[in-house]
Amino acid sequence: MTTDFSKTKSQFYLPENLVYLDGNSLGPLAKSVSRRVSHNIDAEWGKLLIDGWNKAGWIEQPSKIGDRIGGLIGAPTGTIATGDTLSIKVYQALSAALSLNHEKKNILSDTGNFPTDLYMAQGLIKTIGQNHQLICVEPEKVIDALDDTIGTLLLTHVDYRTGRMHDMKLLTELAHKKGIITIWDLAHSAGAVPVDLIACDVDFAVGCTYKYLNSGPGGPAFIYVKAELQNLIDPALSGWLGHDAPFAFEEQYRAGRGIERMRVGTPSVIQFAALEAALDIWEEVDMDDLRKKSVELSEFFIKQIEDTCPMLALVSPREANFRGSQVSFQFENGFAAIQALKAHGVIGDFRAPNIMRFGFTPLYIDRSDVEKACKTIAHVMNEEVWDKPEYKVKSKVT
Amino acid sequence: MTTDFSKTKSQFYLPENLVYLDGNSLGPLAKSVSRRVSHNIDAEWGKLLIDGWNKAGWIEQPSKIGDRIGGLIGAPTGTIATGDTLSIKVYQALSAALSLNHEKKNILSDTGNFPTDLYMAQGLIKTIGQNHQLICVEPEKVIDALDDTIGTLLLTHVDYRTGRMHDMKLLTELAHKKGIITIWDLAHSAGAVPVDLIACDVDFAVGCTYKYLNSGPGGPAFIYVKAELQNLIDPALSGWLGHDAPFAFEEQYRAGRGIERMRVGTPSVIQFAALEAALDIWEEVDMDDLRKKSVELSEFFIKQIEDTCPMLALVSPREANFRGSQVSFQFENGFAAIQALKAHGVIGDFRAPNIMRFGFTPLYIDRSDVEKACKTIAHVMNEEVWDKPEYKVKSKVT
Repeated sequence: MTTDFSKTKSQFYLPENLVYLDGNSLGPLAKSVSRRVSHNIDAEWGKLLIDGWNKAGWIEQPSKIGDRIGGLIGAPTGTIATGDTLSIKVYQALSAALSLNHEKKNILSDTGNFPTDLYMAQGLIKTIGQNHQLICVEPEKVIDALDDTIGTLLLTHVDYRTGRMHDMKLLTELAHKKGIITIWDLAHSAGAVPVDLIACDVDFAVGCTYKYLNSGPGGPAFIYVKAELQNLIDPALSGWLGHDAPFAFEEQYRAGRGIERMRVGTPSVIQFAALEAALDIWEEVDMDDLRKKSVELSEFFIKQIEDTCPMLALVSPREANFRGSQVSFQFENGFAAIQALKAHGVIGDFRAPNIMRFGFTPLYIDRSDVEKACKTIAHVMNEEVWDKPEYKVKSKVT
Repeated sequence: MTTDFSKTKSQFYLPENLVYLDGNSLGPLAKSVSRRVSHNIDAEWGKLLIDGWNKAGWIEQPSKIGDRIGGLIGAPTGTIATGDTLSIKVYQALSAALSLNHEKKNILSDTGNFPTDLYMAQGLIKTIGQNHQLICVEPEKVIDALDDTIGTLLLTHVDYRTGRMHDMKLLTELAHKKGIITIWDLAHSAGAVPVDLIACDVDFAVGCTYKYLNSGPGGPAFIYVKAELQNLIDPALSGWLGHDAPFAFEEQYRAGRGIERMRVGTPSVIQFAALEAALDIWEEVDMDDLRKKSVELSEFFIKQIEDTCPMLALVSPREANFRGSQVSFQFENGFAAIQALKAHGVIGDFRAPNIMRFGFTPLYIDRSDVEKACKTIAHVMNEEVWDKPEYKVKSKVT
């Protein structure tokens, strides 16, 4: 183990008396972010004004940041575009995949996919108005469903509810044998588990940065396009910054070179400043070290909870190889239990209908944190602390 | 005149010895922004973590901000959704318009439209793959081109190059007589000129906030949808936050109520914090006062430049009623001239092929600023200060 996780932990601001097991939903604040954003606002925007685009490098930042994210998921330079939201990036990838494989119109996904991926596919299908079909099967049945009618496979690598992890290499290989284009959503993978897009020969990947990459609420998303495919794509979302010469202001869209064509509109420069600072921490992290520690913490957590809380049923795969970096339990009163835990300093989250979800992020969560969380959970569950009216009040965001 | 523009000016950070006539491209930094963003980052994200979505109101902020922008452009509560980029909002509006008027497939626009609007239309047309056609005529010929084949009129209200302003009320009325749906791009209108979407009976409008609304580089965009149309729209970009119950995580998209369905993915919360602070300044601004002062400054500028710089040819309309809040001149060496002006403390910008563009923003630009700018321009142009090699070096962003 070469990664010093006590050092990475020291680079985050974490409120006292709180164990944050929700970095799989929103990563915490790295200490360097405030200063970097203030610099962006005061010294760049404030002083350079419009010249910030050139002099502070705002225009190139999305590409540079893309390459840095690429380093964490096995994507070479020039294969990742950043910006927009994950929903938009799904739309870009899927519309490109459909046009590259227009003979076979069916899209295969699974019921463990994050809803927005399915929704964006539904919206795209309606927009195209042909006979595309979105087929959703149980995650375990994906392999059997890879038949000759399928043109595109759209999957989330790690299930947002259960943490179940697909075999990206195997599924991509099986898909390719049938001439199927693959799109992998890495929302719960980038910065969470080792990913090697080149080794897996993935065609498209998309992801967000506000979870394990800690870019802050609403940070930019990303899209990966395999190098050989890039220049074959006629982008559906053909925005001016994806044009080959944005500042020539031509009337006709001409796609930019390679991955640049996946840019759309003006990048969210302030959010990019936060992301840039948050990415610095990864420079000294080895993803295999991170995975090892994530598995250790998760296994310890599962054992402790199962030993002490018989009312909680594990829904994550027991076998670490099939699990991402989160652990989920089913409990009928999961919503109230999660609120009670929050009130007692353990932050997880709830996913309808009955899932209590806990994320393990070795960058800033260590063994003592998990021990503390386990004790609190045992107390809240066994003493039925959760069974109070105040913990049952529904909030807008869960 | 009830608006105190010396007070609004005092609320901006403006570098000394510099006249900023480029607020039509990127508005300057309001003094309150840094503090508001720091609060968002340190006190909200840092301390509340995931609870920021509920406790700091991040989830509702895009709607609240939309209503505030609405107040500046004559749009009632519940008719504006914010987020994404202007390009994305154009795609949303146009795809909705096409589906509402699917019999008549032609889209009319003009050559003065900002390229990304045309590009997004081209990308959408290819994605739909039917026989939609984008017809682009000279701005002066739009009225004559409103024939029975046109289903949608897609125009930018104020021309980004010349500042020419369309008659929104007249064109919308003429379009409606032919059963044509109207989409107005307010990029150079919102916060620049009085706009009354209700009085003009506009169907869709889109805009950005980083120009005259001063939200900072990459600030959120917005889309207006007339109340009667909202529930008829099946969104093309059907993201989870536009779902009727995002946190129910259903497999099937069900459009949210009213304007909420135009939300897509996770909002850029940090950029929203900056926008929120920048909007505060507008609370004490009367748009008619702003327009009056904008016209005064523009007229004064035109007269001074024409009196002193015979090599510059006005390309903006001479008549104020047909002009937005910018003034543009043609000059063969416009790029070099703009760089020379920058070096001498007057910031305008260049638009290919030969346009020198100057924005007038009474919120923070006053008569003495314009006088100073005019003197500098007269010097730079008449002494041929611009004719130096260093002013001819092309930059990535112009």
